[in-house]
Amino acid sequence: MQVSQQINARWIIPIDDANSVYEHQALIIQHDKIIDIVPQKNLSAYQPKEVVELNDHALIPGLINAHTHAAMSLLKGLADDLPLDEWLNNHIWPAETALADEDFVRDGSELAIAEMIKGGTTCFNDMYFFPNQTIAQVLKSGIRANIGAPVIDFPTRWAKDLDEYVSKGVAIYDETRDDALITISFAPHAPYTVSDESFKVIQPIINELGLTTHIHLHETAKEVEESIEQDKESPIFRLKRLGLLGPDLMAVHMIGLSTDEIKLVADFGVHVIHCPRSNLKLASGICPVDALTKAGVNVALGTDGSASNNDLDMLSELRTACLIAKGESTNANTLPAIEALKIATINGAKALGLDKQIGSLEAGKQADITAINLNSLETQPVYDAVASVAHSASRSQVSDVWVAGKRLLDNYKLTTIDEPEVLEKAAKWQEKIKQFHHRSIKAV
Amino acid sequence: MQVSQQINARWIIPIDDANSVYEHQALIIQHDKIIDIVPQKNLSAYQPKEVVELNDHALIPGLINAHTHAAMSLLKGLADDLPLDEWLNNHIWPAETALADEDFVRDGSELAIAEMIKGGTTCFNDMYFFPNQTIAQVLKSGIRANIGAPVIDFPTRWAKDLDEYVSKGVAIYDETRDDALITISFAPHAPYTVSDESFKVIQPIINELGLTTHIHLHETAKEVEESIEQDKESPIFRLKRLGLLGPDLMAVHMIGLSTDEIKLVADFGVHVIHCPRSNLKLASGICPVDALTKAGVNVALGTDGSASNNDLDMLSELRTACLIAKGESTNANTLPAIEALKIATINGAKALGLDKQIGSLEAGKQADITAINLNSLETQPVYDAVASVAHSASRSQVSDVWVAGKRLLDNYKLTTIDEPEVLEKAAKWQEKIKQFHHRSIKAV
Repeated sequence: MQVSQQINARWIIPIDDANSVYEHQALIIQHDKIIDIVPQKNLSAYQPKEVVELNDHALIPGLINAHTHAAMSLLKGLADDLPLDEWLNNHIWPAETALADEDFVRDGSELAIAEMIKGGTTCFNDMYFFPNQTIAQVLKSGIRANIGAPVIDFPTRWAKDLDEYVSKGVAIYDETRDDALITISFAPHAPYTVSDESFKVIQPIINELGLTTHIHLHETAKEVEESIEQDKESPIFRLKRLGLLGPDLMAVHMIGLSTDEIKLVADFGVHVIHCPRSNLKLASGICPVDALTKAGVNVALGTDGSASNNDLDMLSELRTACLIAKGESTNANTLPAIEALKIATINGAKALGLDKQIGSLEAGKQADITAINLNSLETQPVYDAVASVAHSASRSQVSDVWVAGKRLLDNYKLTTIDEPEVLEKAAKWQEKIKQFHHRSIKAV
Repeated sequence: MQVSQQINARWIIPIDDANSVYEHQALIIQHDKIIDIVPQKNLSAYQPKEVVELNDHALIPGLINAHTHAAMSLLKGLADDLPLDEWLNNHIWPAETALADEDFVRDGSELAIAEMIKGGTTCFNDMYFFPNQTIAQVLKSGIRANIGAPVIDFPTRWAKDLDEYVSKGVAIYDETRDDALITISFAPHAPYTVSDESFKVIQPIINELGLTTHIHLHETAKEVEESIEQDKESPIFRLKRLGLLGPDLMAVHMIGLSTDEIKLVADFGVHVIHCPRSNLKLASGICPVDALTKAGVNVALGTDGSASNNDLDMLSELRTACLIAKGESTNANTLPAIEALKIATINGAKALGLDKQIGSLEAGKQADITAINLNSLETQPVYDAVASVAHSASRSQVSDVWVAGKRLLDNYKLTTIDEPEVLEKAAKWQEKIKQFHHRSIKAV
């Protein structure tokens, strides 16, 4: 049988229930799909148009960044070492209000997508203004994305009121229905920026279109305290009252949950998106990954935006997740290497409702693949490829990336994005944003 | 005046009390020393033999890894996701007993040094058997090191009893007295593996030679509990009774300290070496960096050995230190970017008693310098070079490294170590160690 591609790999870590690791096997791709994984000795059934030799490499499912704000890459390092409210109110929101127009989102998204592909991410879950611009960059680059249509109770450059947020969200959904690489969520920003009335307007639309919802939830202790003060209930209980809880909800952050709240999340099948580095950097708190997992909750992993992280490095994120989960649970066996890889791959796919298509390497799924070269000082010797990937490898060892069978990174080189051009654009934004920020800080 | 080298850099982060950042300046090197830092416009005083242009780069003082076991690089990934006692007793110590001979230490140290130089580390503080072999690799490679002469209350391949540990330690001190790149500590392994009697033997020798002491201390809650049970005092109070506390002591780990213990450390001027990733990975606990710093304690940073980390990446370590300190203190301003750079540079120099020679970029100090290329997707735009280095840059962006004026990494290439040869040796050890470990695990 003639097939598109055959990748010979030293290790294949498919991410399956048996925690398999295949050695010296080949992954067979036909068009956009994986159709087989077979021992390299036993390949007579296939005549590939292209053979890729990755004899020092581990193949893993493409990493899924389950929460980010791609365009904010242009703001990385603008304001650091500050708590969430000060960081948002005095730095990020003023900068966004002044500068985050369509061009900003276009160039910021492109910078982010370039960084993500080079770091082995094949799919990201975004929430930002001008999602149309992010979508254009997704299609141009060939990466996969779930795009959140933002809803927030104040006017922005993207929309002036709830009606416009909703109609623009629905329009984006309509426009992308035929794009295989794109799915759409509604993304109400957070409980403290979206009123009951607004939730009541968007919820029937989300249900009617069969979409998922992507929301910041329980990001800080302050958010939870103020909600209890104002509504006599924590934000997640408020969302329960509003009928939002269910397997279509992606709840991002979820720090410091009580036993009751963990049970609620488990009972309703809500997906939790864990952003450990952002939560630590803003000193927001820690998401109880061990307790959630033990309660049967699906926990996926996100980097958050680069302005609070300060990068989109999923290998670094999963490694920190691993360390923090052990520290938080005081158990060194919590979130072992293979489970850390799962939260960064299949669990993200489940959260997005895409686990039939992506999240593992198996016949019938999309060929979204990340290759990591383990033959380097940083990862030699290799006793266990899973441990090497989760505990030692860094993103500079990501050599090749495929999305839907298309090779977006070829031997460390981006194939669909002009890297020097992206850097030039970033330099231009740097001057503009720096000038604004200096004036703005002086004015405070 | 004729000088050896002139490095033109986009940014120089010298690490001084004023938290200076110089832009478009040049660093002037004469032989092994920095002799000046001057604006690039104003260079007429110097005629350099060599000019190095680093126009997208930040120069920082070479990173100081204040606690590691270099040779254990050959064991990275052998046993993961286990608590300290199980990891040591069932995996690491059996492997070391069977395999850690002179050849192991020679090749493991070389692998570690190669990884450290590529990651921007110019000096490391080591503790391991056969320190003579590590010293040989230090001299061969040109890196700087403080080498611990091990003392432990059981026989090893290195020494059969206390007398031999001591005499071999003194011999190493004598042999390296003229090596500018090497200093020596005594390294009693830990309170639970070294008796009062042994401490009483080594302490007068350490004092007489004017050496520092390097010890694992308060690494786990279990260690502290058992000490209280057995000696009616926590390990650090035991060391106080034995007269070991003082500015010549480097106490590594120091998790979960009480207020009294923090005061004790501060009163005696003990240096604390923080190893956040190792402590988290083994679920040992967290060192209270914020409280220690506020009490006036000098806190330096180490990666620990690769078998528990699993790398020797100081940029990643300082970034995790930053995140954990904010999380642990619930204050986003704790350990801001510049302070994170200090714990990885000048504070390490202070701990080693080498702050007159290294730890910052200033006239009169040794030319131990790390250059980081910030013109990459991962770190563009740059609003604040210090934030970019501490919160975004990864070690793959380290382009050049000098130790004592000698360029050990030249445009990403090691100049004193044959990288392919090191990888070949690691592959040979991998087979040997894998076979032993499989047999050993089956036997348990």
